[in-house]
Amino acid sequence: MITVERALEILKTETSPLRGEWKAVAASRGRVLAESILSPIDMPSFNQSAMDGYALNAVEGKDNYSVINEVAAGSDEEPELQPGEAVRVFTGAMVPATANVVVQQEWVERSGNVIRLTHEIQLGQHIRLQGGQIKTGELALEAGVVLNPAAIGFLAGLGITQAHVIKEPKISLITTGNELIEPGNELNRGQIYESNSAMLCAALEAYHFNAHTVAKVRDDYALTKKAIETELEKADLVILTGGISVGDYDFVGKALGEIGVRELFYKVNQKPGKPLYFGTLGDKIVAALPGNPAAALTCFYRYVLPVLNQMAGKGFTGLEEIELPIREAYFKKGERAEFLKAKIKAGCVSQLGSQSSAMLNSFAQANALIYIPADRGQINKDERVQVLKF
Amino acid sequence: MITVERALEILKTETSPLRGEWKAVAASRGRVLAESILSPIDMPSFNQSAMDGYALNAVEGKDNYSVINEVAAGSDEEPELQPGEAVRVFTGAMVPATANVVVQQEWVERSGNVIRLTHEIQLGQHIRLQGGQIKTGELALEAGVVLNPAAIGFLAGLGITQAHVIKEPKISLITTGNELIEPGNELNRGQIYESNSAMLCAALEAYHFNAHTVAKVRDDYALTKKAIETELEKADLVILTGGISVGDYDFVGKALGEIGVRELFYKVNQKPGKPLYFGTLGDKIVAALPGNPAAALTCFYRYVLPVLNQMAGKGFTGLEEIELPIREAYFKKGERAEFLKAKIKAGCVSQLGSQSSAMLNSFAQANALIYIPADRGQINKDERVQVLKF
Repeated sequence: MITVERALEILKTETSPLRGEWKAVAASRGRVLAESILSPIDMPSFNQSAMDGYALNAVEGKDNYSVINEVAAGSDEEPELQPGEAVRVFTGAMVPATANVVVQQEWVERSGNVIRLTHEIQLGQHIRLQGGQIKTGELALEAGVVLNPAAIGFLAGLGITQAHVIKEPKISLITTGNELIEPGNELNRGQIYESNSAMLCAALEAYHFNAHTVAKVRDDYALTKKAIETELEKADLVILTGGISVGDYDFVGKALGEIGVRELFYKVNQKPGKPLYFGTLGDKIVAALPGNPAAALTCFYRYVLPVLNQMAGKGFTGLEEIELPIREAYFKKGERAEFLKAKIKAGCVSQLGSQSSAMLNSFAQANALIYIPADRGQINKDERVQVLKF
Repeated sequence: MITVERALEILKTETSPLRGEWKAVAASRGRVLAESILSPIDMPSFNQSAMDGYALNAVEGKDNYSVINEVAAGSDEEPELQPGEAVRVFTGAMVPATANVVVQQEWVERSGNVIRLTHEIQLGQHIRLQGGQIKTGELALEAGVVLNPAAIGFLAGLGITQAHVIKEPKISLITTGNELIEPGNELNRGQIYESNSAMLCAALEAYHFNAHTVAKVRDDYALTKKAIETELEKADLVILTGGISVGDYDFVGKALGEIGVRELFYKVNQKPGKPLYFGTLGDKIVAALPGNPAAALTCFYRYVLPVLNQMAGKGFTGLEEIELPIREAYFKKGERAEFLKAKIKAGCVSQLGSQSSAMLNSFAQANALIYIPADRGQINKDERVQVLKF
């Protein structure tokens, strides 16, 4: 049995980003750039008006200009202006090479084809110069950047349609247990509804990990082994729930050993989630979580999520970790570290009732986990504790 | 022109949650419950073992028990135990009514069909009692709860497959502008690549608003009006970009007036994003954002996101708002409030370069916006400023 801290260290060391793939920019939000992108164009690619108004071939001291033409946004016309002449322009339109200033329309009085300036102007004003944002060949975005909405817009604005991004991990989920029955069916005595798959798929989706499939197997050694083998072929990460404890029907550990999965660790000194297993087979990762829903979800947040982010190229980061004062005193019995379902409210954190590993009631109300390290016992009211926010 | 604060007040007052709909629980993560859910079952629905071990009909002072049978998880068998008898049980299995304790297997020595207890036991231990988590008819989840992964698991565990949840807002995005061309095509002089749709779709997706469509129109009054009418029929929220300024080709304002959209406000005393418009038509909302990408995205984060969350039943909440010390002094010129692209790092916030409303470079690197209220000018180094985190 290892500590929480050691388990995290091992996972941080033993996992790494997936390879790159070419992907449509518009569908790459949240992805990490596998290689830097240089701009293929000047942006803007012409001198661009930042205002609705007039482009002038301005002459010092002159207030009246004759309007000889107009340039709408998107037009490739470029009228030639003599000193003292103006063209009507609009935001985003090309400013002719012979103009040296744009004046917003609120700063002119127009009568017929003559405009009179009502304000002092500065040469060059309201012209976005060609290449002012970025020039052809300059670094647009660096490898390792996470493509947020602004980055997607930026790349689209450069006319880039494909980017080389780190692959999204493919995830297979395998639930085990003879007692499990699908929601919607009649419950016989001794059976419970299978809820881990819906819960973990929702958790994956919450963090935008969409490439997952679900398999369900009975407590049978051959079927369990076959399912793990099949899913390992398809997925980068296989998540199992249940079957990893010490019972006679817990076939997961044995099957993983037979398949040749190398154990990273088994059993962590924590509550809930003691019988947690991680292993690797080549580049693939196997996470075997406890069957109890609340324990499985706790392990997902604390261990699986940072592994997934690491695989996606975002580093070994999971839930946001902060320190907050605890609203009521808490006494931790025993020598295991604890994750408590908790609610952050008004700058404080409270632990919620029903901390049993099988119970999801309080988890459904929670927006955080409190982490109590193994060596702590009495936690006083208002003491600052470590909090994982989701 | 109104203040940022007044604009937010108006939107908070004038928007409201959509109606409820029945939806598969497994597909309802992030949705808000439109009505409370009572449990249809006892959970667990039988006395359940919390351990791999032995269920005993325990007798005080007795250490040796004969094992007469076993109950696997999922089995409906319920052997009858006489005092002094035990059955093998596994985590999740039914504990027979005639047993009064479960002993974990690590606490017994077994030889043949006899087990000897090696530890002191407490009657009732390791039995999860029928209905211990929730009883039939008790409140499972209250109306207004956001269905997080744990809540999805909890409902699935109760066998519930459908929930009455607030609808997800349907969103239509309309981009306007003759100068816009699709990325992937050759750029002619005077044209720019259309990037607002990819950027805003990514922003919507980042916050799990997936029900959106995109329409693109040229600067033409009749086409603009027709597009707005068509999208208003399909969508709960129509987002426009561009065409809302004072130029001769800005047809959006006129079209909205003709269609009968009631203006909530037009023009906000802010930079970027001054020409921001919101209106309503019945229950529908129209947001007309500036055409400049960075301005459009700023307005999305500050105004559109809280409106969407309100429509989805989550209240008028958008980006997380915190206060942080600013790393360098900043001087705000002019009387408009400002949103600065910024980066939070090591407990401080820095404003990034290139704050022009047309530039996305710095936005692509940003993880926050700094808000400088209209009445502020000089901001000193280390002064605490309002930060919107994304």
